Amino acid sequence: MRRAVTAVRVRYPEVDRMGVVHHTHFFVWFEIGRTELLRHLGCTYAELEEQGIFMPVVEVFCRYRSPARYDELLEVETALQEVSISRVAFSYHLRRTGSDRVLAEGRTVHATVNRGGEVIRLPVTYRDLLSRP
Amino acid sequence: MRRAVTAVRVRYPEVDRMGVVHHTHFFVWFEIGRTELLRHLGCTYAELEEQGIFMPVVEVFCRYRSPARYDELLEVETALQEVSISRVAFSYHLRRTGSDRVLAEGRTVHATVNRGGEVIRLPVTYRDLLSRP
Amino acid sequence: MRRAVTAVRVRYPEVDRMGVVHHTHFFVWFEIGRTELLRHLGCTYAELEEQGIFMPVVEVFCRYRSPARYDELLEVETALQEVSISRVAFSYHLRRTGSDRVLAEGRTVHATVNRGGEVIRLPVTYRDLLSRP
Amino acid sequence: MRRAVTAVRVRYPEVDRMGVVHHTHFFVWFEIGRTELLRHLGCTYAELEEQGIFMPVVEVFCRYRSPARYDELLEVETALQEVSISRVAFSYHLRRTGSDRVLAEGRTVHATVNRGGEVIRLPVTYRDLLSRP
Repeated sequence: MRRAVTAVRVRYPEVDRMGVVHHTHFFVWFEIGRTELLRHLGCTYAELEEQGIFMPVVEVFCRYRSPARYDELLEVETALQEVSISRVAFSYHLRRTGSDRVLAEGRTVHATVNRGGEVIRLPVTYRDLLSRP
Repeated sequence: MRRAVTAVRVRYPEVDRMGVVHHTHFFVWFEIGRTELLRHLGCTYAELEEQGIFMPVVEVFCRYRSPARYDELLEVETALQEVSISRVAFSYHLRRTGSDRVLAEGRTVHATVNRGGEVIRLPVTYRDLLSRP
Repeated sequence: MRRAVTAVRVRYPEVDRMGVVHHTHFFVWFEIGRTELLRHLGCTYAELEEQGIFMPVVEVFCRYRSPARYDELLEVETALQEVSISRVAFSYHLRRTGSDRVLAEGRTVHATVNRGGEVIRLPVTYRDLLSRP
Repeated sequence: MRRAVTAVRVRYPEVDRMGVVHHTHFFVWFEIGRTELLRHLGCTYAELEEQGIFMPVVEVFCRYRSPARYDELLEVETALQEVSISRVAFSYHLRRTGSDRVLAEGRTVHATVNRGGEVIRLPVTYRDLLSRP
């Protein structure tokens, strides 16, 4: 399955004065999740960019169910949701390590573009890599 | 109208190695937008928290249409979309100052909770303040 | 005098669970301070980079005297401390708007490098611009 | 020895448009370094705060020798430099994993304060824990 689980520990400056992780940081963890999923599938996002393939975010969504707190160990479960000619989507589920409870669930949609920002087809090698069962 | 326009200038560390603003920072600007909308309506978010009313984000969405770049002057147009007993939603449109083109549009949904994180009714004074035409 | 005062308002995610601004963000404000000082002197940092002149930070220092808090209006006073062939240094004093009390004082030292990261001489036009009394 | 080595991987939004890690993020890694050093010594910073002992940063310094880049694996070596009645100082050396070259070296000084921000003596149990050879 096109799926990977990545651990992150909550950093001090990620927590706001309510004592919970500020909502923006979940997207940083989601980015770590998809980076590690790609690495797990055999390519790194750094390599993609070296080859002139960029995957900027064009849409994001997140539902926050329960707060995350300082120093907690969390797990991001990342799955490939969609791979098409010039568009890739990932879904995310965030949990505390060792717990089934979902703290947050999200989705990001990416275009595939060149260095100049023009939409390009994702080369078939990568499309296969991302979509084979 | 429950609407306010707030200027922000793109900061150096908000721009990533693609040369465009990283997608997480748009939510920081949206937060500035709703803070300034509240101030414009006559209450500040800081005062709300001092009175034990917190408005954590429970859902976010953003569609990115066109990138923002270093040192650009932008405008966030924030509007109240929904005010109910214990839930408030805002919409956002981001443009370059002096331009009509929408760079990004977003939405955030907030619960009203007390210091302990329990859902509370938004006091009627504030509900009126936010929802009167 | 090579000096400028710039206003910043404390943003929600800049405040940590102690209820005070996390120490890293002061350097973001210092960066805004030197950006606005350059703009005030007649060149922008964005233009410098377009011309292939980069000013990466090679050394920083900050002493924190008193905390800054959410939604406060602050002022960064930035001064040019040193301009030499391939090195520029700035000093910073942070205060609340309307107050003389210094919340933090800092210093950043910058090399002048080209796009490849090699040290270059700061062109004399810019050296004059930065150092004339 | 009061020393610990902690791995961090460079995250995408930590890299700026020069293609190198923005200088502010080094202090986030230093904070991770001292957090893990404390954990290694048998107490966590989270526990300290639960007991009403806070260690805000009162002074920082960093010298940047060589840039860090996206997706690199780095190591922060953190050492206790000074432990006195109400003051603790740490030093940091940042390297790429498997390399001896120092990318950056830093120092942070902390006061020990209570929840209200008043300077307190670091309880002797913790002073012993931090300073025994």
